[in-house]
Amino acid sequence: MKILVINGPNINMLGIREKKIYGNLSYPKLIEMIEEKSKELKIQIECFQNNIEGEIINKIQSAYAEYDGIIINPAAYTHYSIAILDAIKSVSIPTIEVHLSNIHSREEFRHRSVTASACIGQISGFGPYGYLMALDYFKEMGVINE
Amino acid sequence: MKILVINGPNINMLGIREKKIYGNLSYPKLIEMIEEKSKELKIQIECFQNNIEGEIINKIQSAYAEYDGIIINPAAYTHYSIAILDAIKSVSIPTIEVHLSNIHSREEFRHRSVTASACIGQISGFGPYGYLMALDYFKEMGVINE
Amino acid sequence: MKILVINGPNINMLGIREKKIYGNLSYPKLIEMIEEKSKELKIQIECFQNNIEGEIINKIQSAYAEYDGIIINPAAYTHYSIAILDAIKSVSIPTIEVHLSNIHSREEFRHRSVTASACIGQISGFGPYGYLMALDYFKEMGVINE
Amino acid sequence: MKILVINGPNINMLGIREKKIYGNLSYPKLIEMIEEKSKELKIQIECFQNNIEGEIINKIQSAYAEYDGIIINPAAYTHYSIAILDAIKSVSIPTIEVHLSNIHSREEFRHRSVTASACIGQISGFGPYGYLMALDYFKEMGVINE
Amino acid sequence: MKILVINGPNINMLGIREKKIYGNLSYPKLIEMIEEKSKELKIQIECFQNNIEGEIINKIQSAYAEYDGIIINPAAYTHYSIAILDAIKSVSIPTIEVHLSNIHSREEFRHRSVTASACIGQISGFGPYGYLMALDYFKEMGVINE
Amino acid sequence: MKILVINGPNINMLGIREKKIYGNLSYPKLIEMIEEKSKELKIQIECFQNNIEGEIINKIQSAYAEYDGIIINPAAYTHYSIAILDAIKSVSIPTIEVHLSNIHSREEFRHRSVTASACIGQISGFGPYGYLMALDYFKEMGVINE
Amino acid sequence: MKILVINGPNINMLGIREKKIYGNLSYPKLIEMIEEKSKELKIQIECFQNNIEGEIINKIQSAYAEYDGIIINPAAYTHYSIAILDAIKSVSIPTIEVHLSNIHSREEFRHRSVTASACIGQISGFGPYGYLMALDYFKEMGVINE
Amino acid sequence: MKILVINGPNINMLGIREKKIYGNLSYPKLIEMIEEKSKELKIQIECFQNNIEGEIINKIQSAYAEYDGIIINPAAYTHYSIAILDAIKSVSIPTIEVHLSNIHSREEFRHRSVTASACIGQISGFGPYGYLMALDYFKEMGVINE
Amino acid sequence: MKILVINGPNINMLGIREKKIYGNLSYPKLIEMIEEKSKELKIQIECFQNNIEGEIINKIQSAYAEYDGIIINPAAYTHYSIAILDAIKSVSIPTIEVHLSNIHSREEFRHRSVTASACIGQISGFGPYGYLMALDYFKEMGVINE
Amino acid sequence: MKILVINGPNINMLGIREKKIYGNLSYPKLIEMIEEKSKELKIQIECFQNNIEGEIINKIQSAYAEYDGIIINPAAYTHYSIAILDAIKSVSIPTIEVHLSNIHSREEFRHRSVTASACIGQISGFGPYGYLMALDYFKEMGVINE
Amino acid sequence: MKILVINGPNINMLGIREKKIYGNLSYPKLIEMIEEKSKELKIQIECFQNNIEGEIINKIQSAYAEYDGIIINPAAYTHYSIAILDAIKSVSIPTIEVHLSNIHSREEFRHRSVTASACIGQISGFGPYGYLMALDYFKEMGVINE
Amino acid sequence: MKILVINGPNINMLGIREKKIYGNLSYPKLIEMIEEKSKELKIQIECFQNNIEGEIINKIQSAYAEYDGIIINPAAYTHYSIAILDAIKSVSIPTIEVHLSNIHSREEFRHRSVTASACIGQISGFGPYGYLMALDYFKEMGVINE
Repeated sequence: MKILVINGPNINMLGIREKKIYGNLSYPKLIEMIEEKSKELKIQIECFQNNIEGEIINKIQSAYAEYDGIIINPAAYTHYSIAILDAIKSVSIPTIEVHLSNIHSREEFRHRSVTASACIGQISGFGPYGYLMALDYFKEMGVINE
Repeated sequence: MKILVINGPNINMLGIREKKIYGNLSYPKLIEMIEEKSKELKIQIECFQNNIEGEIINKIQSAYAEYDGIIINPAAYTHYSIAILDAIKSVSIPTIEVHLSNIHSREEFRHRSVTASACIGQISGFGPYGYLMALDYFKEMGVINE
Repeated sequence: MKILVINGPNINMLGIREKKIYGNLSYPKLIEMIEEKSKELKIQIECFQNNIEGEIINKIQSAYAEYDGIIINPAAYTHYSIAILDAIKSVSIPTIEVHLSNIHSREEFRHRSVTASACIGQISGFGPYGYLMALDYFKEMGVINE
Repeated sequence: MKILVINGPNINMLGIREKKIYGNLSYPKLIEMIEEKSKELKIQIECFQNNIEGEIINKIQSAYAEYDGIIINPAAYTHYSIAILDAIKSVSIPTIEVHLSNIHSREEFRHRSVTASACIGQISGFGPYGYLMALDYFKEMGVINE
Repeated sequence: MKILVINGPNINMLGIREKKIYGNLSYPKLIEMIEEKSKELKIQIECFQNNIEGEIINKIQSAYAEYDGIIINPAAYTHYSIAILDAIKSVSIPTIEVHLSNIHSREEFRHRSVTASACIGQISGFGPYGYLMALDYFKEMGVINE
Repeated sequence: MKILVINGPNINMLGIREKKIYGNLSYPKLIEMIEEKSKELKIQIECFQNNIEGEIINKIQSAYAEYDGIIINPAAYTHYSIAILDAIKSVSIPTIEVHLSNIHSREEFRHRSVTASACIGQISGFGPYGYLMALDYFKEMGVINE
Repeated sequence: MKILVINGPNINMLGIREKKIYGNLSYPKLIEMIEEKSKELKIQIECFQNNIEGEIINKIQSAYAEYDGIIINPAAYTHYSIAILDAIKSVSIPTIEVHLSNIHSREEFRHRSVTASACIGQISGFGPYGYLMALDYFKEMGVINE
Repeated sequence: MKILVINGPNINMLGIREKKIYGNLSYPKLIEMIEEKSKELKIQIECFQNNIEGEIINKIQSAYAEYDGIIINPAAYTHYSIAILDAIKSVSIPTIEVHLSNIHSREEFRHRSVTASACIGQISGFGPYGYLMALDYFKEMGVINE
Repeated sequence: MKILVINGPNINMLGIREKKIYGNLSYPKLIEMIEEKSKELKIQIECFQNNIEGEIINKIQSAYAEYDGIIINPAAYTHYSIAILDAIKSVSIPTIEVHLSNIHSREEFRHRSVTASACIGQISGFGPYGYLMALDYFKEMGVINE
Repeated sequence: MKILVINGPNINMLGIREKKIYGNLSYPKLIEMIEEKSKELKIQIECFQNNIEGEIINKIQSAYAEYDGIIINPAAYTHYSIAILDAIKSVSIPTIEVHLSNIHSREEFRHRSVTASACIGQISGFGPYGYLMALDYFKEMGVINE
Repeated sequence: MKILVINGPNINMLGIREKKIYGNLSYPKLIEMIEEKSKELKIQIECFQNNIEGEIINKIQSAYAEYDGIIINPAAYTHYSIAILDAIKSVSIPTIEVHLSNIHSREEFRHRSVTASACIGQISGFGPYGYLMALDYFKEMGVINE
Repeated sequence: MKILVINGPNINMLGIREKKIYGNLSYPKLIEMIEEKSKELKIQIECFQNNIEGEIINKIQSAYAEYDGIIINPAAYTHYSIAILDAIKSVSIPTIEVHLSNIHSREEFRHRSVTASACIGQISGFGPYGYLMALDYFKEMGVINE
């Protein structure tokens, strides 16, 4: 099983960025946690972070027929990127949307997800643990897309 | 660790109710899956289902100083019950909101969660597995409420 | 043919409640009219009234595999109870929504029905006669749900 | 008792038009059903169909002091014709609004009725049977306008 | 003079619930303050608290022809319970709406009161003292409903 | 000077229609008042009433290069007829919009005029006298369109 | 007959202010036209202009039992002054709202009149001639308020 | 204890103004009732009424370090005066908002209070008695601002 | 191949109407261009223009089983005629919506098309050339409706 | 004549992406069809596809003084990219917006085009043929920008 | 060069008012800073503060033909005073809008400026330094109004 | 002191782009003006322009711990880029938002700034001079972030 993990804009600033919301965990530490878990679950992963909406789309497209699942945290793009929504739909790969913070307890404009409707589901508010939940799900349930 | 699992209106109709959305899994089977997982994680749980908004509030209140965490699927009440929102806030117990279906890919009025802002986070779209994710989270991360 | 007649909150106050809108007809008299008509049509009915949203849901669920049709006046819950909407959907029993007053000529917030989309149709504004229309319909057209 | 039955735009295409929504019943067959019922109830009726908003208004006005009741299916005009609303108000004849399909389970813009507030009530979703319900009502309850 | 005092969902959690908003006053202490004041004013009262919307409606209906006035804090139901609005209207008993906190300085969705339009007036923001104001008003002004 | 006076749907029902809003004045009497005033001001007029939106457009178009001014009461069409708006623009004849009742003190949906922006101005609320004001204006100020 | 003519903010800048909208006519010239017309109609008038919302209210109140009618151009206050609306209602003097420009062909926020619903009617778009129309109306129709 | 009582626009027209809403009580009588109560409670008061938004602000500012509390009925300004909101905030004096009528049962635009969020609380619908309630509150609870 | 070309309200005023938007091309010249192109493509056409919404519906209905395709410019009706939308749906003939001007660069209310969702597609902004594009499309692609 | 053809995000996934909406046509095949047509019309073209909003802007800017026309399918960016709107405006090159699917019969959020107002016009719903229509238009009508 | 500096409601309470937002700087100190800068730039200034909307309008009008530029902080009136907007337009003097706090990071209703569209531009969030920026601009760029 | 100056999409087209709004000033000339001023103020600057949203984010992130302040004109991205908003927040560097044109006097959708709430303040409408104001501010007030 091969899973692509995509992190959107400013996730690379974790540990620096708005600690009151995101805590002290750094981005390299986040990746380390994901990689450790993957090894444990015997899932092959690739981690990718980019601030450019279109590069995230490029990456999603490149996963076509290559990966069995995608875990994506589109960060700010969650709330307006119809282009990422379309990219997820275009590859038909089972995708899980993850958010570090609880988007429902932040600003009004963060409550809405434009991208989640193309995903299996959404996990929001569990910090780095959300990514591990997603990996567990893929391991347990497989990646048969609906 | 003691966790209270609350299911809202019509969840007891699983297996009968709108199979195109919810699948064939019955409510007793769902509870069985949750109980099995709890045993495995050595978490003590109580499962509760009720169609009455106020009885769900009564149950949440009764958890005060009794339970370490709550897993709640408020079902239809998710979208308008300010009273359940207030109940979760009133007991200050770490709470996770779970939805069987992906609320972001259903009717517009199901995209909004009134209750999630009082929770640690929300898990939506993973069927019964969502409850197991929540249990795993409590086991791994403990129940220190923010 | 077995039909369940459900009346929502404050319908039991008929004859006392806002006579300018609802007239002098009392709730017992309404039930009498419905029972009389049922007898005439040789339909077996049960009449139920409750002010509690969740008890209405309980009743709808209990009708599963027991009743051939439901006539429901959700009263105030018409306008916000997604939970009753889901209950009607969960049992897949042909259901007719009835309103005593014409909801389209009252306050703006009464124009919208949250529950009607799960029903065969809606009858609004004909006083107690609306229930008789619904019974006639079930008698004439049978209860093959679409 | 003289009743005027008015059908709005595209109702004449029944049997051809969107069969998934309206079924196989043709317009002539609908009229036949209405006429049969009227004969049975000893109600004198006239059936009128027109695609022109203003001709529907002309017909409503011509009913003044001539008809005891109106049964109207304004079809698409239901949702925006303030002019038909005003016409119904101008003649003060008891009027019943009928819809073949359940307008509450179709597109958002069909949920709202601009014309119903000038009517006694609205019957929606019962196919051709809705017209018969309206005739029954007039027979049973008379046509004393409120 | 007999007054019914109704408290809605989560008011029983006072002293535990969100102290930053509601302070340290407990529910029993609130009731004690109300009872003391009633004794002083020689008003006979009954205090009732319930988390179930429909039980609040049941209580309001039971007051018909039994009580001279109602003091109600519908708590979260204030903002969406059309059913409680209708219940207050159905009994025609002079009713005063009370809120412990100032609903106008909290979340946007708490600014709107669905129930207040059926009341004489609304008192909001004065903590337990609001109930005493309402009792004083009934004593001074009597209970002649408008 | 030649002026075309156009009255929209249901104006012909004056004296019959909603007397509480429009008073006892009949449509023939209204026309008589307009004709009398025209004679007095030595303005040549033609009066036209129609319930059909498109016939009103036909009439406006027929005025092109024939009439010096138009006085129009689009009645219900005021609030939604973009087609009449376009017709007025297409002929470039100075046009005055007149309403018998004060549209600003009626239902919300009557406050907005879709057609007025193509006119010199709007006169609303002065009953039949509004038409006479419009004639006076044309007499005094001429018909030089801006 | 005594009529009070009130002009709101920036009307005194006529001839200087936005000539593309208001033309070259100066405020003194406007007053002269109004006074001339009044003399001709044997109406006693007082003209008042003020930029202060509250002074306009003071003036309206001072008209109580002193004037038979009010002609008011509330200018910018038209669109938000609930206080002027209430002042017009408080004195129960027949009032006509006048606007120099056609408010329906300007910015969206100028289409709505908050104050017009307390007036007999509104005249908009006829430049200074609108005031003369209002005087004519009072002369012809008297000032019996509805 | 020194309390400043401020009444906004058109309150001085009480007894003349819209009696159906405000009753027969005149403004001088209202002031007399307030003064009598103050004397009884041994509170020193000053009563101020003004129709000018900015004069109300001037008065609020003048209370700084002079008064212990403010009772304000901003009347129509309640619904749009951000300037009065800011004035109340700027002086940090405990303030109570009072309305004679129940703003929740009047026009939609009167349901919203722009100014209440800067106050301790709001009392609405109890006629002149609302001012006395506010005085009682200050007497009983003191004026320690939150 | 037989194609019906329908032009809606005010298109017949081309060359006269708002030249800044529509240019100097007259309606007869437009028809000439369409006919010339049809001849060239060996498509049999009929051109129809009408200002009456219902007559456009009549024409669409008359095309049933007679025409292979429809080219329609509903003009102003584009933005509100649910009745024309239903008519296009009722005949199931491949239909192309054409607009002379670019509706996306005009007033806000012209951006929305109510009718386009029943069409194959929409061509907007290319003047008379848009009709020729539509003819070319039918010629090239045939008229197999989806 | 030199024309730049720009395709936005996910258009390169044609043939893979959502075949129910976009059919089996692949992106290379689309380009082949466009190139063939260009050759036939003796138009020099360049085809460009990119998933990055800013690279599309770079390409548009690079066309300045180099190309005579632009054909653009901004895909998902159509609905929110004010930056692409500004880019089209900044180069003042005649531009045609093309959509493969009919945006008016898809999700609500796809009905609105942010970019079309800077274009000559929009062609929507004709699959690959839309690009050929645009080329035809440039050939026939030239590229004189308005 | 003569510049008029206008400060709106509650700016005179600086140093007292909401220090968390506005800091410790007092109004006299603000004026001193402005005057010092003006002297340095050899600009003649007049500083004016008023809480009354209409007095601010009076002052703006009085600047006509007297001042070369206006610096205005309309404070709370920024968000609703169409009357001040019109006043600025009426005098055609180059005007700069200044805000002490960053209006974009405060309450939603403070994000919108009704008055800025009549100004050269807006400076927001730089405390007293914003006024000095405006003076610098006038010195450097002159006061040629666009 | 080191300041990073970031210009968003299409700013590089200055002098070519929409001269009616932006004037004749070219982008190189703008940069020259900024560099000249910086030299004068002894501020070390770097100027960066990019059309790609994500590259702007990359640049902002690269400034972390390198620059003392940021001057940003996000151009079109101002109105929708939550990603740039988050980037500014993530680096915690004092940032000033600058706009060449007055965004409050352009299209409705340009009035709102998504990014400004993360900045010290916003300067809008002063052409290239706005950048110089921002530099002056940093020089005078230092870069202590709030």
